[in-house]
Amino acid sequence: MKNQVGREIPDALLTEGLEAYQGPFYRENYEYTRAAAKVRPMVTPKASKVVDSLEEAIRQSGLKDGMTVSFHHHFRNGDRVIAMVFDVIHRMGIKDLYLCASSLGKAQASLVPMIEDGTITRISSSGVRDEIGEALSAGKLAHPAWIRSHGGRVRAIETGEVHVDVAFIGAPTADAYGNASGKGGKSDCGVLSYAAVDAQYADHVIVVTDTLVPFPNDPYSIDGINVDAVVVVDQVGEAEKIAGNAVRQTSDPRELMIAEYAAECVMNTEWFRDGFSFQTGAGGASLAVTQFLAPTMREKDIHMGFALGGITAPMVAMLKEGLIRKIADTQDFDIPSVESVHETPGHFEITTSEYANPLNKGAYVNLLDYVILGALEIDTDFNVNVVVGSDGKIQGAPGGHVDTAAGAKCTIIVTPLIRGRLASVRDQVTSVTTPGETVDIVATDYGVAVNPRRQDLVEQLQKTDLPLKSIEELRDIAYGIVGEPKPIEFTDQVVALVEYRDGTIIDVIRKPQV
Amino acid sequence: MKNQVGREIPDALLTEGLEAYQGPFYRENYEYTRAAAKVRPMVTPKASKVVDSLEEAIRQSGLKDGMTVSFHHHFRNGDRVIAMVFDVIHRMGIKDLYLCASSLGKAQASLVPMIEDGTITRISSSGVRDEIGEALSAGKLAHPAWIRSHGGRVRAIETGEVHVDVAFIGAPTADAYGNASGKGGKSDCGVLSYAAVDAQYADHVIVVTDTLVPFPNDPYSIDGINVDAVVVVDQVGEAEKIAGNAVRQTSDPRELMIAEYAAECVMNTEWFRDGFSFQTGAGGASLAVTQFLAPTMREKDIHMGFALGGITAPMVAMLKEGLIRKIADTQDFDIPSVESVHETPGHFEITTSEYANPLNKGAYVNLLDYVILGALEIDTDFNVNVVVGSDGKIQGAPGGHVDTAAGAKCTIIVTPLIRGRLASVRDQVTSVTTPGETVDIVATDYGVAVNPRRQDLVEQLQKTDLPLKSIEELRDIAYGIVGEPKPIEFTDQVVALVEYRDGTIIDVIRKPQV
Repeated sequence: MKNQVGREIPDALLTEGLEAYQGPFYRENYEYTRAAAKVRPMVTPKASKVVDSLEEAIRQSGLKDGMTVSFHHHFRNGDRVIAMVFDVIHRMGIKDLYLCASSLGKAQASLVPMIEDGTITRISSSGVRDEIGEALSAGKLAHPAWIRSHGGRVRAIETGEVHVDVAFIGAPTADAYGNASGKGGKSDCGVLSYAAVDAQYADHVIVVTDTLVPFPNDPYSIDGINVDAVVVVDQVGEAEKIAGNAVRQTSDPRELMIAEYAAECVMNTEWFRDGFSFQTGAGGASLAVTQFLAPTMREKDIHMGFALGGITAPMVAMLKEGLIRKIADTQDFDIPSVESVHETPGHFEITTSEYANPLNKGAYVNLLDYVILGALEIDTDFNVNVVVGSDGKIQGAPGGHVDTAAGAKCTIIVTPLIRGRLASVRDQVTSVTTPGETVDIVATDYGVAVNPRRQDLVEQLQKTDLPLKSIEELRDIAYGIVGEPKPIEFTDQVVALVEYRDGTIIDVIRKPQV
Repeated sequence: MKNQVGREIPDALLTEGLEAYQGPFYRENYEYTRAAAKVRPMVTPKASKVVDSLEEAIRQSGLKDGMTVSFHHHFRNGDRVIAMVFDVIHRMGIKDLYLCASSLGKAQASLVPMIEDGTITRISSSGVRDEIGEALSAGKLAHPAWIRSHGGRVRAIETGEVHVDVAFIGAPTADAYGNASGKGGKSDCGVLSYAAVDAQYADHVIVVTDTLVPFPNDPYSIDGINVDAVVVVDQVGEAEKIAGNAVRQTSDPRELMIAEYAAECVMNTEWFRDGFSFQTGAGGASLAVTQFLAPTMREKDIHMGFALGGITAPMVAMLKEGLIRKIADTQDFDIPSVESVHETPGHFEITTSEYANPLNKGAYVNLLDYVILGALEIDTDFNVNVVVGSDGKIQGAPGGHVDTAAGAKCTIIVTPLIRGRLASVRDQVTSVTTPGETVDIVATDYGVAVNPRRQDLVEQLQKTDLPLKSIEELRDIAYGIVGEPKPIEFTDQVVALVEYRDGTIIDVIRKPQV
């Protein structure tokens, strides 16, 4: 069947209650009972949960063929935990595992042979980039992968759609009872937001750290009362690949122009007033938007009520200056952010459920005024693709894209109109990640298009000097420069399902023809 | 049947899996699946969860006859929330409710007529003092009440033995999404530790506050993602009855003598070394123990690793001085403690599950070296009664008594040998709250008795000048002065079950003969 954004979802996939996407708020009035973990309590008091080796901890967990294991990605490209754990699992000969990660990338390249040999047969992840993305696109995984947004992953675990048997939580520091923190040690990552749901809902929780500290490891993000075992290893991450120094400001005039347009959209719409809320990514244009806002905020005495999501140095600087009142942090992209969280008053960590889960009692994204997001492609119905590259291969991640777009009052996409000799704005996107109904403005280097569903924004922005265009005009300009993109040829084999944050299927990704 | 501490538990009560007490660590190897709440999610983003009135919030919650409602007692004698909520419930005509409170006392006197008229037919609480205690002892509640320790209450909710339909959480401050804190506003109580489990496991959660603050109310203890509604009322508590100025130091020479003996026991046993952990109550003798320890700690350069539980000004002063490294706080007994938590580095809030739940994966009490506890009565097998007065009426609360005694390496009871012309140390206690197997030392104004089960302590303390006596000698001294206590006459009617922290029944309380 064709779903509500016009994507063909094979009926054979829509079994066991799985439904096709039917609009961003389709699950209004949905009710459920939360999932619940099995518990093996510590009845007789013990002094420590430290287990001698990863292998012993895995043995004690009862991990066996067909089970689900989970991981977080706060160590990003510096992560050593996933590779280390799977190395042991592979040696132990455990097979047919479901890998439920918050994201996967370059640091997990060593998993490809384990996808090929059946150690890993199912995957749920936000990002599946690099070698893992290649392997998935080549159809090497036994079952189609699930691409889930950050909010969607938490939802899937909290509703019980995914049941984690054993969670492995890499932590910069932990005490002997498993109270674990993103701070301290030699692999500092600031927060452990993505791992909170794993700790709460997995039957067995193993904290993996390279720095054991005295009890209690306050302030901690992972609560020892949910932890079964602590394993101390040499190194959980490579610091230089976890967080760099402050992200460099862009000097690309095209990016600066896009950022300025986006900032103008913010500053000329109704929610830009004292106490407004805001999220932006770490990309060049996204980051620059914040910096364009600051002078006007100072001038007009407008303070940001809260900044949300992945945090970078400019946000921290504005918090310290008093321009931002609170930072609700789910990830730290640079060392200044890592250092600030839990230290600067008002800079605090939230869990990913708090951040973006569409089926809890109200996530932070619901209260966002503005979000600035990137895109690989946008179609003339404002549907956005951030997952599949123009070669048809999986190379991106929905992350919080889908979640913040649904929550924010004003969702602004920043993208160059042309990328790699291909039109970003086009009749059809290669894959739909974020539905156009939740996307309000597209800011490009050739002009700004407002979603006609949002006449309130059209009216407000018509009063400005912004180069407003229709989305079709932007497409025509792009096509005029680089021509109409040739559709990629795909086979019938479905290699991944793109899940909308509420659990419905917004798209499927097929194996590209070689 | 007679249980392991020799108390007669009527077989008729031991149905549906309920078991008699069989030793403090009887449930080793117990496994269970955590309870789980029903969730009505916020799918379409809303700006606020504020509901106009308590009545409207109760209506929306779907509360009806036979359901369970829950409350915390952080406002202590200044609490207005329970009375206010039940006033509305009573007006609405809802009946046959199960009241699951963390404690009840003077501030809930207005509930007695509702116990009499069947609005409230079941109660679970730690303390049931004052008018409520009288009403229970008089047999006015339709079903026997459950007396649960702090850890036991959390366990009962987490295992699903008690399912809370609607939780009412009084909060000094909250934002419009229900992120609630014990700090700020006009009814400051510091922490909301007891309420954490209610927020997580109740189907419907209503935050009641008198001070609505901008979102996000960081740092908060109750997470808005678990909250359905926020109600703003005039006043949730009476500040002067919530927390006073610093608790006055005792000048009673008898209390000081007992405290000095207890401090000597601490300072002359093996766990008194750098990094030791410690808990004490807010009573005169208990509090004084801390102050006797401080000079020796300074002199020997011994720092407390962590202090636990209910906190008072002397602990905060020692944290600030550097004598204590961390304070893990579950309740604030005075204004200096309220002001310090979340402000003084190292002074942080923990949930009651973290504190004392015997069936999670390892609570803080497990890592206690020393705990100083009070008692109403102790028998010659070291069983302690803190619940039933010598008139046979319910007038106390196990609180964390049972939990810390089971967890700590060295449990010290401080009590005057004679109280109100009655012997505290006696052949039999009126009711068993804490089993003697978990009680190690009894310090009285007539000498110190060490539990013969603890030969390690006997050996260590024999090297001191402490006036060591056997527990039988202490009893004999007491009987010599005030005579053997006359047993209280009880009817057959069971008015309350005293639950051991693991869910087994350690005693039943019968209605006294008038």
